[in-house]
Amino acid sequence: MSRDVAIIGVGLAKFGERWNAGLKELMAEAGLQALEDANLKSDDVEMLYGGTMASGRFMGQEHVAALMSDQLGFKNIPAVRIENACASGGSALRQGYISVASDIHDIVVVGGVEKMTDVTSSEATTALGGAGDQEWELFQGITFPALYAMMAKRHMYEYGTTEEQLAAVSVKNHENAMKNKYAQFHKRLTIDEVMKSKMVSDPLKLLDCSPISDGAAAVVLAPLEIARKYNDTPIKIVASAQASDTLRLAERDNLTSIKATSIAAEKAYKQAGVTPKDINVAEVHDCFTIAEIMAMEDLGFYKKGEAGKAVMNGETAINSKISINTSGGLKGCGHPVGATGVKQAVEAVWQLRGDAGERQVNGAEVALTHNVGGSGATAVVHIYKRAN
Amino acid sequence: MSRDVAIIGVGLAKFGERWNAGLKELMAEAGLQALEDANLKSDDVEMLYGGTMASGRFMGQEHVAALMSDQLGFKNIPAVRIENACASGGSALRQGYISVASDIHDIVVVGGVEKMTDVTSSEATTALGGAGDQEWELFQGITFPALYAMMAKRHMYEYGTTEEQLAAVSVKNHENAMKNKYAQFHKRLTIDEVMKSKMVSDPLKLLDCSPISDGAAAVVLAPLEIARKYNDTPIKIVASAQASDTLRLAERDNLTSIKATSIAAEKAYKQAGVTPKDINVAEVHDCFTIAEIMAMEDLGFYKKGEAGKAVMNGETAINSKISINTSGGLKGCGHPVGATGVKQAVEAVWQLRGDAGERQVNGAEVALTHNVGGSGATAVVHIYKRAN
Repeated sequence: MSRDVAIIGVGLAKFGERWNAGLKELMAEAGLQALEDANLKSDDVEMLYGGTMASGRFMGQEHVAALMSDQLGFKNIPAVRIENACASGGSALRQGYISVASDIHDIVVVGGVEKMTDVTSSEATTALGGAGDQEWELFQGITFPALYAMMAKRHMYEYGTTEEQLAAVSVKNHENAMKNKYAQFHKRLTIDEVMKSKMVSDPLKLLDCSPISDGAAAVVLAPLEIARKYNDTPIKIVASAQASDTLRLAERDNLTSIKATSIAAEKAYKQAGVTPKDINVAEVHDCFTIAEIMAMEDLGFYKKGEAGKAVMNGETAINSKISINTSGGLKGCGHPVGATGVKQAVEAVWQLRGDAGERQVNGAEVALTHNVGGSGATAVVHIYKRAN
Repeated sequence: MSRDVAIIGVGLAKFGERWNAGLKELMAEAGLQALEDANLKSDDVEMLYGGTMASGRFMGQEHVAALMSDQLGFKNIPAVRIENACASGGSALRQGYISVASDIHDIVVVGGVEKMTDVTSSEATTALGGAGDQEWELFQGITFPALYAMMAKRHMYEYGTTEEQLAAVSVKNHENAMKNKYAQFHKRLTIDEVMKSKMVSDPLKLLDCSPISDGAAAVVLAPLEIARKYNDTPIKIVASAQASDTLRLAERDNLTSIKATSIAAEKAYKQAGVTPKDINVAEVHDCFTIAEIMAMEDLGFYKKGEAGKAVMNGETAINSKISINTSGGLKGCGHPVGATGVKQAVEAVWQLRGDAGERQVNGAEVALTHNVGGSGATAVVHIYKRAN
């Protein structure tokens, strides 16, 4: 790969229950905002990668990248849908990065979208179950909350992680979401409220779980060498790495760590020439509160067993030791699955540009995003810096 | 892009109604055959692209590339699912090509799979409808046979194409499939039998339509410079091109041509430095008989309105003027949608290696594959030559 890659435009469609918006409206909202941010017209775009997980089951709509390209007025360009469960967005970003880094295209749009609220929550839970092994897990009655509950139980057993520490993740992320106008929830929570919310799968309660959401996100990529033609504050992608693991939780080496995250993170730190200590702001994949705790450890921010205490101590709030999920994360900002990985990149860009408003991390220099598919069969890690 | 790319291994799982095989078994059957053909072990593979269209709706299974990687014993490598409707396989091949050409990975597997026969044909037709615009076409009651029937009617009106000419496509492709042990159908047809088969959507009858199929296909890619380490007869991919168009048929410039095919073909011929006259053998996307006739014209093999007569005259049979759909095409070999684009590449490789047995095209030097998504919102064209 020969070229440095920058993000020159970002856009978000508000996350939430968007009753009046379908897939097309959400895509247009995020995509046009990103194009405008990059001072580009639709005709300038050479390639589109579109991440979405289960539009077929949620909306009866496959072929979503071509639809997105059509909707955004792109001119007969190659459009490719990427599906890697909840890591669809991050995986699409990585493919976009590759296509620019490799000198195949100059201007590439990466979009992520999911419209989840047109089906019942039972149907949504079943559709999301397709991220795991259908025959060996879902068909046996194991839902995603149950898979992460097993990880949580084992983490509690091995490291003494507590339900209050899990709850503290949710409280922090809801607090951050208060400052994000694109977030699904603007509702402050207390640990007590999380602890008293309805049990979903022991020990995970309703307020430990990310919600069902509609939303979309988009970023525009360009070679760094020409990025300033379009935007004064290009953000450089200094690492892009991805790894996979067995879909079946039962076949993993252990339940308290996501191996694909560790592998992708190690590659990403090496590519970027940074260490976990250098990261100022991180968007990590908190589909359930235990997932944020495991991510903090697997990404090397904390030793195994230390992350729960750190959250409880406030070390991961905005402008503390390391600011984690400033957007509100999946829990507070919402989790339209195919959009999430791209939204994480949008937040990283806003933080590094100094455009994050009330939730701005002072002196943010290096950002990381971490997107997980299923119970950890896919993990994607990107690292970003301001371009000098 | 800096490197030439070769196909060093190919594999197919037999197409058909595979009652005893699920997604995993089909993937393993094709994938392991391709690895063996390339003299590789699972550990050698660095990246996987997996094409599948609607595994979520057919099987409740998303996240299929990670599942494929797991099933084939690959070690925590990046795995990415590509979905571009019926062009998922061709689109996956193009992404694999890019990743090797760009020096990101050396050994890349591209797989395609679809398991379609575990749902009713009505459910399958609905799922396949997701390749078109759900809100503007499917929801209004338009199925895929109806979309292609409209194209056929207009082609007949403008160019005098006849129902017998359409039928001749099916007869030829079934004849070719007789010689392919991987084909779904081994049943010779006559024009009269096609003409008398049940009407599906006027003028398309049952035997004008490709079937619902299970199947999988896989190819192994490597840089040409090291290809002979693995296989004595590497096949070079000399062009890879893709284009898109509006999903909605109603918004196209005209109904008798697939614009995305013309655009992708023009790019591919330019990249390969060849003209349509140089192509000896082509696998084209005959999801319906009219689609093969449009492909022959849009790919530049025949002028508009001439293709129907050419099929009728036998000019596209094996070892005639240009050998089209030697595998039996989608009609005769079967159409497991995500697998089709990859299967086309497998057939091109066998033809160029001289390994196509009874259906071998004598002196085949240049092959082309053409994979379409939906009613033409995506088209992917690849061109191949023997490596000197």
